[in-house]
Amino acid sequence: MNIDMIRAAATRLHGFARRTPLLSSPFLDDIAGRRVYVKPECLQHTGSFKFRGAWSALSALDPDVRARGVIAFSSGNHAQGVALAAARHNTTSVIIMPADAPQLKIDNTRALGAEVILYDRDHEDRDDIGARLSAQRGLTLIKPFDNEQVIAGQGTTGLEIAQDANELGLQNADVLVCCGGGGLTSGIALACDADAPTLRVRPVEPEGFDDVKRSLETGTIQTNTHTSGNICDAIITPQPGDLTFPIMKRLCGPALTISEQDALHAMAHAFLRLKLVAEPGGAAALAAALFRKHDIKGDAVIVTISGGNVDPAQFAQALDTLR
Amino acid sequence: MNIDMIRAAATRLHGFARRTPLLSSPFLDDIAGRRVYVKPECLQHTGSFKFRGAWSALSALDPDVRARGVIAFSSGNHAQGVALAAARHNTTSVIIMPADAPQLKIDNTRALGAEVILYDRDHEDRDDIGARLSAQRGLTLIKPFDNEQVIAGQGTTGLEIAQDANELGLQNADVLVCCGGGGLTSGIALACDADAPTLRVRPVEPEGFDDVKRSLETGTIQTNTHTSGNICDAIITPQPGDLTFPIMKRLCGPALTISEQDALHAMAHAFLRLKLVAEPGGAAALAAALFRKHDIKGDAVIVTISGGNVDPAQFAQALDTLR
Repeated sequence: MNIDMIRAAATRLHGFARRTPLLSSPFLDDIAGRRVYVKPECLQHTGSFKFRGAWSALSALDPDVRARGVIAFSSGNHAQGVALAAARHNTTSVIIMPADAPQLKIDNTRALGAEVILYDRDHEDRDDIGARLSAQRGLTLIKPFDNEQVIAGQGTTGLEIAQDANELGLQNADVLVCCGGGGLTSGIALACDADAPTLRVRPVEPEGFDDVKRSLETGTIQTNTHTSGNICDAIITPQPGDLTFPIMKRLCGPALTISEQDALHAMAHAFLRLKLVAEPGGAAALAAALFRKHDIKGDAVIVTISGGNVDPAQFAQALDTLR
Repeated sequence: MNIDMIRAAATRLHGFARRTPLLSSPFLDDIAGRRVYVKPECLQHTGSFKFRGAWSALSALDPDVRARGVIAFSSGNHAQGVALAAARHNTTSVIIMPADAPQLKIDNTRALGAEVILYDRDHEDRDDIGARLSAQRGLTLIKPFDNEQVIAGQGTTGLEIAQDANELGLQNADVLVCCGGGGLTSGIALACDADAPTLRVRPVEPEGFDDVKRSLETGTIQTNTHTSGNICDAIITPQPGDLTFPIMKRLCGPALTISEQDALHAMAHAFLRLKLVAEPGGAAALAAALFRKHDIKGDAVIVTISGGNVDPAQFAQALDTLR
């Protein structure tokens, strides 16, 4: 896993993934007490950065292997990213989703061309289902973060951040990344280490689901006791990945945490000041920039908005924080 | 008024206004029955395209004239555009706003550096106030659309649309523009006429406030009987401008109209599929693309989202259309 893989992924993504800009607002600068630059991956195809990793992984497969189709486990953004990347490569995707996943996400994943297989979380083992299907049909498993080509794809976000930061002359800046399994964080860290090495890449997690923070503090992989019960569901995983953690340990930190209320409030500011729709987990880094400013060192901060796939009712809840 | 003025404005705006992309979603294509490309000017500084015209006008002033300050009448997007453009030119802006304008807009305009003067709509004449202040302080009036440099600034949106349409190979496409006084519509029409002449530029207005539609049909300037009472307030003006109408008459049409419910529904789709915040008037063109598809001729449609300055309560109302 190295920078050359990220540059190669960028070449494969060119013309297929969106090259997102850095946005800003003087109102956000005032709240944060420093310049705030926002990388809006909610504007990426399928509404999250996950399309980059999915495209990178699909496009790196041997054509004969790819033609047999791919499979992924996901109830959320990775599902949609893989579905669209597969459809645009004219191949099949099978997405294994829990039967109690939100209907909208199931419908969207199907509409993007995937074959969705629902399973009962309580009585079925998704890994068994996946292994059986893969064996029968020769499908290739696309993991959500512990896959080198997925990390390389997410890292293209970091190449763009580094390029824009260099053009803006930003050197003493913190790069805050919404962090689940660490695919986006480790990819951005590798890219910045190569192209903008004075930037500090820092994971942001929900309070109580800070496996990466504790793993970085102790130097060994730590786990979360729960993996549900927080609105920032898109960035909650049991533990950092075997591939992503060593990269984060070498290049990232210290991590930050934010509350659910902070995430909702940051979503409201993204609405009001940037005209962007962020999902709770996707607003975590912006929340840290706005409401954890004493934990940030740089004269500027660059934050990812990693996704915008949020239900209308939850978005309305975020808007209520403005009252 | 010609294309050279728009190209000159583009040079002055370079590095100061945002170069917005064209966004798309397969879900919108399905509803519209053709490819839909969205020009998200809600992502422009101050949340609307108005910043382009304001910057163009301010940057075109003689430096001595500009140093004495500018004045504008507006309760909305033009106010914020002029305020920020003036602040970044290190000069004063005086914005005359009705005392009953939304507090958020008054606060924002002040926060962007303007001196806000409130007047009583029922008992004071804003033109008198403006004339007195201009005479006393040597302020230059920046009109919202009937100003050649303002039209040139809005026209830079059209240069970008034409460039992207040419790169995408779009020839048989309708360009739908949210239309009030016609500054954005006429500017885009001039730019497309020069750089992408097979595109059809078509104004979109709220039903019952279709002065431009009737003016284009009759060939002479028609007026609206009312100028309030519709949620698309940002694109309602008494009549097309003396400068903008001849351009629209030569290059645009036929116009389209949409209902308030269509506008709210289009806002909800922009939220769901593009992760963008549109205001009702800013969603008018998208509404026409989605819900007036039989009135559109092209195999593709390019729509402006002209602004995103919407109150949370009204946005929640738009989300309710998804239930």
